[in-house]
This record gives sequence, C-alpha cells and structure tokens, in this order.
Amino acid sequence: MYLTQGLHRAVQQFPQRDAVICEGRRITYEKLAERCARLAGALEDLGARPGDRVAMLALNGSQHLEYFLGLWWGGLVANAVNTRWSAREMIYSINDSGARWLLVDDTFLPMVEELRAACPALERIVHVGELPTPAGLLSYETWLAAARPVADGRFGGDHLAVILYTGGTTGFPKGVMLSHSNLWASAIGRLAETDPPERFVTLLTVPLFHTAGLGKVVSQLIVGGTAVVLPAFRVEAVLGSIAREGVTDAVLVPSMIQMLLDDPTFTDYDLSSLQTLTYGASPISQALLERAMAALPMTRFTQSYGMTEAAPVITVNPWRNHQGEALRNGLVRSAGRAGWGLEVRIVDGQGTEVPRGTVGEVIARGDNIMQGYWNKPEATAEALRDGWLHTGDGGYMDEQGYIYIVDRLKDMIVSGGENVYCAEVENILARHPAVAACAVIGIPHPTWGESVHAVVVARAGMAVDEATLTGFCRAELAGYKCPRSVEFRQELPLSGPGKVLKHVLREPYWKDRPARL
Amino acid sequence: MYLTQGLHRAVQQFPQRDAVICEGRRITYEKLAERCARLAGALEDLGARPGDRVAMLALNGSQHLEYFLGLWWGGLVANAVNTRWSAREMIYSINDSGARWLLVDDTFLPMVEELRAACPALERIVHVGELPTPAGLLSYETWLAAARPVADGRFGGDHLAVILYTGGTTGFPKGVMLSHSNLWASAIGRLAETDPPERFVTLLTVPLFHTAGLGKVVSQLIVGGTAVVLPAFRVEAVLGSIAREGVTDAVLVPSMIQMLLDDPTFTDYDLSSLQTLTYGASPISQALLERAMAALPMTRFTQSYGMTEAAPVITVNPWRNHQGEALRNGLVRSAGRAGWGLEVRIVDGQGTEVPRGTVGEVIARGDNIMQGYWNKPEATAEALRDGWLHTGDGGYMDEQGYIYIVDRLKDMIVSGGENVYCAEVENILARHPAVAACAVIGIPHPTWGESVHAVVVARAGMAVDEATLTGFCRAELAGYKCPRSVEFRQELPLSGPGKVLKHVLREPYWKDRPARL
Repeated sequence: MYLTQGLHRAVQQFPQRDAVICEGRRITYEKLAERCARLAGALEDLGARPGDRVAMLALNGSQHLEYFLGLWWGGLVANAVNTRWSAREMIYSINDSGARWLLVDDTFLPMVEELRAACPALERIVHVGELPTPAGLLSYETWLAAARPVADGRFGGDHLAVILYTGGTTGFPKGVMLSHSNLWASAIGRLAETDPPERFVTLLTVPLFHTAGLGKVVSQLIVGGTAVVLPAFRVEAVLGSIAREGVTDAVLVPSMIQMLLDDPTFTDYDLSSLQTLTYGASPISQALLERAMAALPMTRFTQSYGMTEAAPVITVNPWRNHQGEALRNGLVRSAGRAGWGLEVRIVDGQGTEVPRGTVGEVIARGDNIMQGYWNKPEATAEALRDGWLHTGDGGYMDEQGYIYIVDRLKDMIVSGGENVYCAEVENILARHPAVAACAVIGIPHPTWGESVHAVVVARAGMAVDEATLTGFCRAELAGYKCPRSVEFRQELPLSGPGKVLKHVLREPYWKDRPARL
Repeated sequence: MYLTQGLHRAVQQFPQRDAVICEGRRITYEKLAERCARLAGALEDLGARPGDRVAMLALNGSQHLEYFLGLWWGGLVANAVNTRWSAREMIYSINDSGARWLLVDDTFLPMVEELRAACPALERIVHVGELPTPAGLLSYETWLAAARPVADGRFGGDHLAVILYTGGTTGFPKGVMLSHSNLWASAIGRLAETDPPERFVTLLTVPLFHTAGLGKVVSQLIVGGTAVVLPAFRVEAVLGSIAREGVTDAVLVPSMIQMLLDDPTFTDYDLSSLQTLTYGASPISQALLERAMAALPMTRFTQSYGMTEAAPVITVNPWRNHQGEALRNGLVRSAGRAGWGLEVRIVDGQGTEVPRGTVGEVIARGDNIMQGYWNKPEATAEALRDGWLHTGDGGYMDEQGYIYIVDRLKDMIVSGGENVYCAEVENILARHPAVAACAVIGIPHPTWGESVHAVVVARAGMAVDEATLTGFCRAELAGYKCPRSVEFRQELPLSGPGKVLKHVLREPYWKDRPARL
C-alpha cells in the first residue's frame, strides 16, 4: 500500500469533492492531486530524491495535505515541526532530520533568519502564505505554478513516510520513524471497527504535526472524505465549522471538550451532524464525559489510547461502552482493548505477561508500530523488543482484555494532550545558577488534566522566585512544557541510591483522586 | 501483520467464545489456539519447516480452521485441494505444490492409495474424521493429543500463507500464491467498508478451498467472530443454521440464493439475524436479486467482484446501491468500485487507460494482489505488470468509478460460482478419437448463471454421441467442468487466421439477454 492510493481512488470516483476546506479555501480532490504532482516535481527539480526529508513549520492549513501527499507522491519524508516548540527545539528537529528544504507559513516568517543561521543543511526555504515573500525565499504558489507535474512513484509499504518528533526522556526530542504501512495499519484498523459514514467530514483542530491529526488525514484519504482544517483551536471556529460544514467526525482532547461545553454559545449551534467524537491523550473525568454525552446526544463517543510510536492507535474503547451498564460498572473508564490489527499485553520488568488485574507495562505489537527512532539505535532497541513496543505506560488488563492505564512508567506529564518529559524541563531548570536541585511532576488541573509543577531547592545564599524560573524556561522550551507552578523546598526526598522519590512529591496532590483514566 | 493475530486477540478477550461450529461440534477460541499450537508442533516433529507446504483434501469442516491457523502458526503454507476436482487434477496440484504431508477426511479416504501412488513426495498422510483410521495413516486426534504445543512463530507480512489452485487457460491449474498480507489486506479493507456487527457469526457454505470462503475466515479472525461451517451446500442446513445460530453474515453465489428462495420451507425459518449477504462470482439477474431482497427485508445485500489472484476482493457495490434510485438506474448491476486498499483501472491492450464507458481489461493494484503463480514465472509476468493484476475480464467504468463487467477476455465460463477454463475442457475433448474439432462456450443457465456447452465436429466416418463425450470428460475433469450439453456441427466458424469465432457460437444463446451482470 501507499498513502497516495486513496487520493487516486477519490480522483477516479468523485474528483469534484472537497478534499480540504480551510478558512474559506476549498481544494477538490482533482485539484489536490494536480498540486501534489507539481509539488513532487518542484522538489525533484530542487534535487530531492526518494527518502530525503522535507520540513514544514506552519500552523494547521490546507497546505498540510499538499505537503504530506506531495512528499509521499515523490517518496519523500515529512518532518512537520511542532509549532509549539521553542526555537531551540525546532532547530534541533530540523537539523536532526537532515532536512534540506523547509516550508514556512506567514506565522513563522519572522523565524526564517534564525533558522537559516542555525540549520546549515537547509538549501531552500519555501514561503506558503498570504504575506509578501521575503527575498531569498521561494514563493509556494509561484514555484508550484512553474513546476513540472510528475507521475506518482507509488512509494509505500516499508518506505518511510514521516519523522515525527516527540519529547524524550533524555532531554532531547526523538524522531519517530513511521512508514506508509505504519500509518495505514492504524487508520484502516480503526475504520474497520467503526461504521463507515455515508459522508465523512472530519474536523482537524488537533495539530497536524501530531499523529492524532495525521492519523485522521490518513483515514480521510482511505475513505475519500473531506477535511475541515482549523489553524488553531478556537471555540467559535470549532462550533461554527461543525454546524456549517456538517462535520461528521472529530478528534478532541478532553480540555478542548471542556472549553466547548463551557462556552455560553455552545447551544446556539446545530451540532447534530457530528456522528463520532474520539477523545484521548489525557485523562477525562467521568463527570465531563457524561456532560459531553448529554450535550451531544447524536454523537458516538469513542476513547482511543495510543502514541506517536504506534501511528497512533493501540486500544479503542468503542461507543457501545459509553452507555448503560458500562457507565455504571466503570468499563467506560477503560482505555479499551487491542485494536484490530495489533496485539497488546501487560508485562513485568522481565517481559513476562502478568496476571489479569496486576499492573505492569503496556506493550503492543502490530503493523502500526514505528520502525524506530531516527538515528537512535539504542533508544530504538530499548523501545522495540521482539517487535513489541514498550510504551512506558503502566496499566492492568481485566478478564475481557480491557486495559486501564494507571501510571506512566516513563517520567512524563500529559498536559492538554501534549506529552511533557520531566527530564527535559529539569535539564533546563538545572541550568539556572540559583537552582541547586529540582524535580518536575504533573499535578491535577481541571482543564488540562495535568499541569507542570516544579519542586526546587535553591542554591544556598541565592534568592530566586517563581517568575524568574518560569521566564527562564520559556526562553528554552515550548510554553506547554514550562512549569505553571513552582514550589521551593529545603531538600528533595531521595531514595537510598539518591534517586528523587517523585511519588512522594506527587502524593499530596493526587491522594483524593481515583487512579488516572 | 500475521494471520494468527486475531486468534491471540480473541483468546485474550473472549476465550470461551465459539470460534467454529460444525455439525454439532463447537470449538472455543481457547481450545482452537491450543489445538493450533499442537498441530504446528506435530508438523514440526514430522520435519515441516517454515515455508513448507501441507495439503488437505476434505469437505468443509471445523478442521479447516485448525489446518489454516495451525499451519500459519508454524509458518507453513496451505494447499487446500479443490474437492470437486478429478483425481488427475488433485494429484497435479499436490505434486505441483511439493506438499510432503496431506490431511484427508472420511470422504476422501478411498482415494488415499491412488494419491500415495501418484504423489511420491508425500511422506505422511493424516486422517481427520470419524471412521477408523486405516493402517499406515496417522489419526489426527491421536497425533494431536500426543503433540508438543509450540509457540506461535508469528510469521506474517510477505510470508506465503496459501497456494490456491485455479484452472488455467493452458489446460493445467495454476497455484496462486497468497501471503499473509494479501489475505489481510482484502479482509480488513472489506471490513472497513461495512458496519462492524456487535456479533459476527458467518456462515461458511462456500468451499473453504476457495478464496471466497477463506477470505471470510480471515475476516472472522480479525473480528473475533464465529464460523458456522457446513460440509456442503444443502438448503435445509443453510436455513436451519442461520435460524439456530443467529448467523449475521453469509457469502453465497447466485445459484445458492435461488435454491434457497425456491425451497418451499424457506418461510418456515426466522432469518432475521442475517444482516449482511454478499453475493458474487457469477451474474445475478435483477429479478432474482429483487426477489431475494424482498424475501430478506432485514438483510443488506452487497455485491463483491474479485478472484483468487486478488485474495479475493477487487470491487464492492455496497448495500446502499441496492435500494431506491440505484435499482432503477442500473447502478445495482455494477460490480462496484475499487475497494478501500486498492486501485482499479480499465486499460487497452497497450496498458493505457481508456475513456469512461469504453470496454477494456480490468486491472487492479493493491496489497491484496497475489505474489504470483507458484513456479510459473512466465504466467506471473503475464498477469502482474508493474504491480497491476491483469484480470482478463472485460469491463467499462462509469463517471463515478463504478465498473461493469461485460465479458471475460480470458476464455472462461463461470458456472455456479466455479471458473471453468474452456481450453481445459477442449484439451480433454480433443483427445477423444472421434473428435475432429471442438469449441467450448458458456450458455445461459437459469440456476448456474452459465453452463458448459461443447460444439463438436466429428471425425469423418466416425459415430459419436453426447453421452459418450460427457462420460469421456467425467473421467478426467471435475464434474462442474464437464459439458452439460453437446452440439454437433459440420464445421466451426473460423477467423481468417483460423481462430474459432466463439462470439458467433455464443450469439444465438445470448442475443436476447442483457450484458452479463
């Protein structure tokens, strides 16, 4: 298989259907295919060859579909840079992927000089946007119009499709390598488990540099559906788009659901077209879930648990478990069972399956599991053993194979659907001259699930305050990774071998809460 | 992926669910997995190694699931022999596949000595059945009970799963090589296009040596459903099984549907559990289809067009096109559009796509397309060009990508869902001393769609009659391939270069009929 396959099918069957709608712009499948053929030709003319990486730094937009599909058409590999990152992190990811070409939108034009200076491998930068294109950059539309359309090389199977960077426990992001097969396996398995809608109009407000968003694009292509893309999450834009475009399918993280429900205009919109709402990525309270289901009675809620390394789906708790008895007996809080197309197990530290009900590490094996981390053979060997992805999440399985995530074995916080690796934040904090020791933990947050909390021991005789430290982090890290709160202590609780006992730090915040998810 | 994956998932999630029900025997998923582990171990102890072929000659039974899954568990390759074939054809297929082990059921015990003599590579024969096991054969249950269960090798992806023999235009069957991926791609694509039922109970009355039956087994495993297996098609058994076991899904060829409807007891059964009925393999008249839909108002009818080489699905005409306007405008008669997971085109003799509405050859490309013909590189190169399977079927495509099959470019008859290659029948007929020339064509048949008709020129001065020739064929060919009628003529209509003009022979029989399908 090849990820452009659905594009060809759509052109054959309904060339005039909208493939993407974004801010009033509509691109039909016929037009999309033509633009992809041109983009592949234009990149080839710049010297790009199958397997080469092309980066993009842009808010969600119609150009994302052209970018992904145009690259795949030519056998190229996408590195869609996380737009929430700091310049330092973006530069790391562009350099690490070895991208020689970069697309930037209007929002990130001001960063171009900094990127050019810090990313010496970049040969050309292409500007995609409405603003005038600065000197030295290619203008996307002009460049595309002049390009020679090439035939689809139909690269697929194990050919690399994307490198998606995720935070790393070592303090630097790791590039997750996903092949055409990886992305297809997750999407088709998910589609198989759900009713195929007569119309498939998906709302893409989650970022398209995430697998949650990218996975939806892959599903949309298989089905030949329409993507309604929002550059950012805004309540009014989300509700208005659902009502106006008849959106049938959306993926949202719990904090987004809460913001929609809390908005006073919520009831002004006709949201009855929304058949399927997939939520996940962070804990959702049953109160919020039940409130959401009551507010959207026509919508089937599905929980999905996954991660970038799984392209992304691992388990699914289907809509049938969001009603009746399942609401009362707690089945609704399960992350679900192994999706069609993979296997899931709970194992101990030696890799042996543990009895049902016993907490262990969640591992998964299937065609959706990543090829590995880009240029990180040791991290790959650690994560993939005998084909099994070791998720770093702790959980248990019930007698029917449903899993419940209870803790992350990886030292990680999930805030508003974004992963924050504690070590990454701690590495930055520790650089501050007034910080003698520090530990970063997740504490409960009513909207974001968890928020980033730092516990700091100040260096003797040095004065430092919360604002100074959060400001210091903000210069180096994506905003969502920066501590929202700082607590100063005389010392940190340590284990015998000197390891910080994070569960001791977490305990007072979490003690009155049920296990996560 | 690996075809045993769904088995493991089912054991994890619902070990006590019936995997297979056959003639009062029920095997749970837990039991099935245990028996597969033993079968793989038993075969390994006989010397079977991954990639080796193991043949089976048996009517549909519960042992088919064990046979397929147990072989895949050990990385072995199944050659499920067509039970309708003549001894000559069976022997050819066993020898051609190089199988060193054979499973036979009670029905085929009488053939064992003949097979042993004609298949020198066979090392051991295993008897699966209720009758006493003759000396020299292994008794399946005893052998399995003594076997050492082995761990699933999780062979999959491009690893060969089955070799299925189909008739060939050259007069000998060809072994279609299907990998784990091929079978999975067809099944998961098909599942994605349909609503996942809460319960999935599939009726397997089509032979399991065919991809239509085998493909259903693969779907059943992905879903974790139950197979209700019937050793042969009998109206009472089909209707009784649907009612008794709550069958939700069935695949039937049109002649089977007609026999069910014609049976006076049809209305005695509660068939309301049947949600999905897939038909295909031969033309269905709109009258029969409408009659069937009226008789089964709770059932969604779907047409599927495919072939062994496509594992098997190529196009699907979904249930939505079996109602309202589609019934009136003829869309219901289409074979459907490219399934999710593949591409379909109509091309001319040079491989160039023809305009919509123009008849050409149907070609298809996707993960479901076979690896090739076993030990037949030339036939493989002829069928697979640039990854595109050349089906040999003539058809056209409408503006929405729906294809209509109008003729077979291959000289082939489809009778009761079975393919009959004319050359194969002609080769046998021509061996009879009284036959000077002959041509075999398909003519309309009210139940079977087509029946095999021979046009014969007798050798000067020799007397021969219909009964003599059909008897002569029966000794060499499967019953369904033998001519049902013979017509004697003074000469055959020939083209300039001496090729028989079959369309001239066919014309009087078909002239008042619409194009096939």
